[in-house]
Amino acid sequence: MERLTATYHLRSRPEDVEARAAALATEQSLELPPSAVRDPWIVRELLGRVEHVEPVGADLFRVRLTLALETTGLEAGQLLNMLFGNCALQEDVELHDVEFPPALLAAFAGPAFGVAGLRERVGAWGRPLTCTALKPQGLSPQQLAELAHNLALAGLDFVKDDHGLANQRFAPFAERVRAVSKAVDKANRITGGRTCYVPNLQGSPEKVLEQACIAREEGVGAVMLEPMIVGLPFFHELTREVGMPVLAHPAFAGQRIRPALLFGKLFRLFGADAVIYPNYGGRFSYSRPTCLELAANARRPWGHLRPALPVPAGGMGLERVPEMKAAYGPDTLLLIGGALLSAGDGLLERAREFVERVAKG
Amino acid sequence: MERLTATYHLRSRPEDVEARAAALATEQSLELPPSAVRDPWIVRELLGRVEHVEPVGADLFRVRLTLALETTGLEAGQLLNMLFGNCALQEDVELHDVEFPPALLAAFAGPAFGVAGLRERVGAWGRPLTCTALKPQGLSPQQLAELAHNLALAGLDFVKDDHGLANQRFAPFAERVRAVSKAVDKANRITGGRTCYVPNLQGSPEKVLEQACIAREEGVGAVMLEPMIVGLPFFHELTREVGMPVLAHPAFAGQRIRPALLFGKLFRLFGADAVIYPNYGGRFSYSRPTCLELAANARRPWGHLRPALPVPAGGMGLERVPEMKAAYGPDTLLLIGGALLSAGDGLLERAREFVERVAKG
Repeated sequence: MERLTATYHLRSRPEDVEARAAALATEQSLELPPSAVRDPWIVRELLGRVEHVEPVGADLFRVRLTLALETTGLEAGQLLNMLFGNCALQEDVELHDVEFPPALLAAFAGPAFGVAGLRERVGAWGRPLTCTALKPQGLSPQQLAELAHNLALAGLDFVKDDHGLANQRFAPFAERVRAVSKAVDKANRITGGRTCYVPNLQGSPEKVLEQACIAREEGVGAVMLEPMIVGLPFFHELTREVGMPVLAHPAFAGQRIRPALLFGKLFRLFGADAVIYPNYGGRFSYSRPTCLELAANARRPWGHLRPALPVPAGGMGLERVPEMKAAYGPDTLLLIGGALLSAGDGLLERAREFVERVAKG
Repeated sequence: MERLTATYHLRSRPEDVEARAAALATEQSLELPPSAVRDPWIVRELLGRVEHVEPVGADLFRVRLTLALETTGLEAGQLLNMLFGNCALQEDVELHDVEFPPALLAAFAGPAFGVAGLRERVGAWGRPLTCTALKPQGLSPQQLAELAHNLALAGLDFVKDDHGLANQRFAPFAERVRAVSKAVDKANRITGGRTCYVPNLQGSPEKVLEQACIAREEGVGAVMLEPMIVGLPFFHELTREVGMPVLAHPAFAGQRIRPALLFGKLFRLFGADAVIYPNYGGRFSYSRPTCLELAANARRPWGHLRPALPVPAGGMGLERVPEMKAAYGPDTLLLIGGALLSAGDGLLERAREFVERVAKG
């Protein structure tokens, strides 16, 4: 029976680690002491197996388990349950990495558009793509539309809703999407460009599907969701059915799952065409190696899965552009939000400068 | 404009904490420096406000913010986004507590059945209720049905699927639910009791709704879900529509959100009739005060919301029954899984002993 490999980081005293690792293997599979299981094939095949334990720091160990593929039901929710169900409640455990055998990979669609699909949408090749966010909360649909119009005039590839724009009274989803979409279209007719507006979908599946319909009716080119809020199984279902590229936003992703795995592998597996994450040197504390590994995971050849576009973000400014281009290369979506918006009357000019700096060889 | 209050624990050097708290308030609201916002009413009304900062430990502070109610859109997903969206990615922040003003509370249904509804379902009053879990993974529908038959004969109130039973090949959902449901009904006809089988629903909304239909067709009395896996907005939508009590399982709940808040308040707000959590002194590390506060939150008078039943679990044995009865009182569901199942041929007897110990005054 085929198995998948999950690697955990486990805090433990060295003298306890073997027993702790065995307990983890039981917790993440049978949840019953093997001695209490009557069917020998269940213990032989379905019990998690500790394959390797090695120290990686003081009282910190890397533990490789294998789990029987069949226990995942080849489905997103139960896969998460097997990888990090009960042990998510144990603070000494971090999910570090997962190796997906071909039979598991085959069960997931991955990005429906991927890097190439996103490039086609905006007609841009051979350079990083550009993106900014409409904010703050509180602006009316008309104010957001004006903002978007200027940003599209500047030639940005993507203008997305901030993740804080949901369906609030000051800018209800339908009105906002209609107004912004029109404003971006108008700017595109002026420039001959193809700026793509990306509304944020939020709420229960019923509401999100309604919002996706509205977005489609308005001719919007892509959408954004927060997979950890709406739920990864729903996210995966939606990416297969929505018919346009999906940007994944990291909000609520406070699990003890290594970012390079969660954003680089799992979000991609479940269909994210682009993966937004907090870049090093911004308002968040991810390290440079973490971010580069995340980006590498998002783009590397991986079975039938299209590559996803990494979107380093979170407090980036224009001065970071050359360094980010050098670090990430062309298949990257550079997202600068606040640093553009804080230009006030100089918004159009600063947005143009962003576009030019990215285009510059 | 009405506001809700969110309390965070923030790790910070004392000299930095005021600035760090202000940055948190911005991150969780406008996500833009106030100086970059042109509309004064947005800063005045929608910017998060630091109301109070006090030390609670070495380099640890309690920070009370208020957030404008309207920014939540009065909806589960966006509420989570406002409370713990981006700051979930900042490891120095833990969401500690939330105070919900009446207008926010009114937007959520809470438990559709609650403690009284669960008691009616099994016809038991004035004592703690009893529950066990069908496991391990790998048993066939027929084997699970035999197990359930014996457990129902013993007079347990609830027999639930282990959260690891999803839709795997060895016990597909429809076959399992049909077989177990029949076996429990048969035992009920023998004993005259009202044991309630609780299948576990897992997967994308489409799959979960299919499973809920099957469960309803089989006459099942309640269902279980993992809200953190299927997504809290979907969980809330489902609890309003499924027409039977819903037990919430804590799998994948590894967020830095205080358990008394997440399980005791948020799961209840979003409609959990019973809330399973790792009890102190078991396989998990929650403290006794944490567990008692969680249970108190689940049951305390709270606007129009019915009380939810706390379900302390995770490595409990029969010897814990008197102490758990004393600690939690009658409005509790005592869940003992492995310690019953490991009795092998003595299962019926040990399950009866569990029932008797709970019934004993």
